[in-house]
Amino acid sequence: MLDFEAGRTVLDAQPFSRMLGARLTRLDGDRATLTLDVRDDLRQQYGYIHGGVLSYLADNALTYAAALGLGPDIITSGFSIEYVAPAKDGRELQADAVLVHAGRTKAVARCEISMVSDDGTRRVVATALGTSMVRNRGTTTAVQH
Amino acid sequence: MLDFEAGRTVLDAQPFSRMLGARLTRLDGDRATLTLDVRDDLRQQYGYIHGGVLSYLADNALTYAAALGLGPDIITSGFSIEYVAPAKDGRELQADAVLVHAGRTKAVARCEISMVSDDGTRRVVATALGTSMVRNRGTTTAVQH
Amino acid sequence: MLDFEAGRTVLDAQPFSRMLGARLTRLDGDRATLTLDVRDDLRQQYGYIHGGVLSYLADNALTYAAALGLGPDIITSGFSIEYVAPAKDGRELQADAVLVHAGRTKAVARCEISMVSDDGTRRVVATALGTSMVRNRGTTTAVQH
Amino acid sequence: MLDFEAGRTVLDAQPFSRMLGARLTRLDGDRATLTLDVRDDLRQQYGYIHGGVLSYLADNALTYAAALGLGPDIITSGFSIEYVAPAKDGRELQADAVLVHAGRTKAVARCEISMVSDDGTRRVVATALGTSMVRNRGTTTAVQH
Repeated sequence: MLDFEAGRTVLDAQPFSRMLGARLTRLDGDRATLTLDVRDDLRQQYGYIHGGVLSYLADNALTYAAALGLGPDIITSGFSIEYVAPAKDGRELQADAVLVHAGRTKAVARCEISMVSDDGTRRVVATALGTSMVRNRGTTTAVQH
Repeated sequence: MLDFEAGRTVLDAQPFSRMLGARLTRLDGDRATLTLDVRDDLRQQYGYIHGGVLSYLADNALTYAAALGLGPDIITSGFSIEYVAPAKDGRELQADAVLVHAGRTKAVARCEISMVSDDGTRRVVATALGTSMVRNRGTTTAVQH
Repeated sequence: MLDFEAGRTVLDAQPFSRMLGARLTRLDGDRATLTLDVRDDLRQQYGYIHGGVLSYLADNALTYAAALGLGPDIITSGFSIEYVAPAKDGRELQADAVLVHAGRTKAVARCEISMVSDDGTRRVVATALGTSMVRNRGTTTAVQH
Repeated sequence: MLDFEAGRTVLDAQPFSRMLGARLTRLDGDRATLTLDVRDDLRQQYGYIHGGVLSYLADNALTYAAALGLGPDIITSGFSIEYVAPAKDGRELQADAVLVHAGRTKAVARCEISMVSDDGTRRVVATALGTSMVRNRGTTTAVQH
């Protein structure tokens, strides 16, 4: 439905993803991974990576996993995210999403976001669940991403 | 629990919020508003403002509303967001959050995000619901923002 | 899109709603209310009304509010609920839902559930946010209620 | 933190769970399963099992998985659920929850609900994500189940 090269092209066409430096590092079967280098300008006042960065990763990784079932022309309808541990020290964030179910027009995916430290150990920092839908072209009432 | 000047100081201490250009434009009673100028580097591949920007606004506005009930030393535990219309044309985004309930250690808030056009008309583009908790100092198992 | 009498007919056609004793007590404009008498067989081990009863009320009230925008032939796609206070002492539960946005095929609604005591005072015990969609007839991949 | 027999005792102490006929069929390691026989009084107007029954199962299974990390004296703070397929034909519903993360006072779990048909085949009908917290005894502002 969406191959790795096409997936990278989509990400490169997102100015916001370029600003954050997100990379698509896996897209096959029912799994998609986004990776993001830790940078100090992504933090909040306690020095943690901002929840908004984690929710960006969840939103985008969930959409990629959904595209594995629905194809590329979709929009994410919504998602929920739970933060489970501080995302502070580490080298990069990985958002690993898996397609849970794809129907004809709607797909549900879940995602775990981990902080990867310099020595390669991983710690889950957030988990998310979201829904994407085939895009309604030519209507002004479409749900959106 | 958190006055407007202190709220602005917190936002200014968040490098990610400075990068996005978010401004705290209301914080009183049970209501908090974050405002963000529309910029092209915040968009995704269809030209819409990226869902990750909207989820950043939801996360942060929900936290401010919770702080009105719990005080400033809190972390957002999680939230859900539903996108309801494309966030494409307009001058600025406003995230209006309201405190729904505050207990001793946990608060729940909801938020509507609107696109404000050049002539001042507003259109709701997303709605969110989230939970914040008083921060557990000195523990490594604390939930986080 | 759905009038009060038609709404009551739908509720009466739901065996599970009859078992719980839910009543549709408002359906007009953008608002729907379900009311449920407190009964001891709806409680959990601490004596609180079971979260599953509150989530039933959220699910169903959100669907009614969505039907005010989309018409009766819809299914709820999903929702999130936050419990904010114990639902213990009181006469009845009221789930007040309001339509936030309706597009052509999808609607988003939010809901507050309150415990009403014998003297008529109300206390919010839960809040919810959910999405409903026009039902896909004749397909086996439709989302469902 | 909570063994199988203690888990069954808790379920038996929930009048609402007894009314629905839920059985605890697994509780070990990081996994909990609730099983519910399909009955016609659990349906809605299209003949599907009511979303409120599925959300009851999610709420309760998520709480059991959280208890595997936090112990028995907890309350579920909230959850989100996505319905992915109609729950219509089948013998029983199974809600399989897994503990994602447990801190000192908060745990996050996810859950898949499947319809099991007469020949034993399974179909996922819903997926959920939720948070539970250690119960605040002796306060009136505690979050609740």
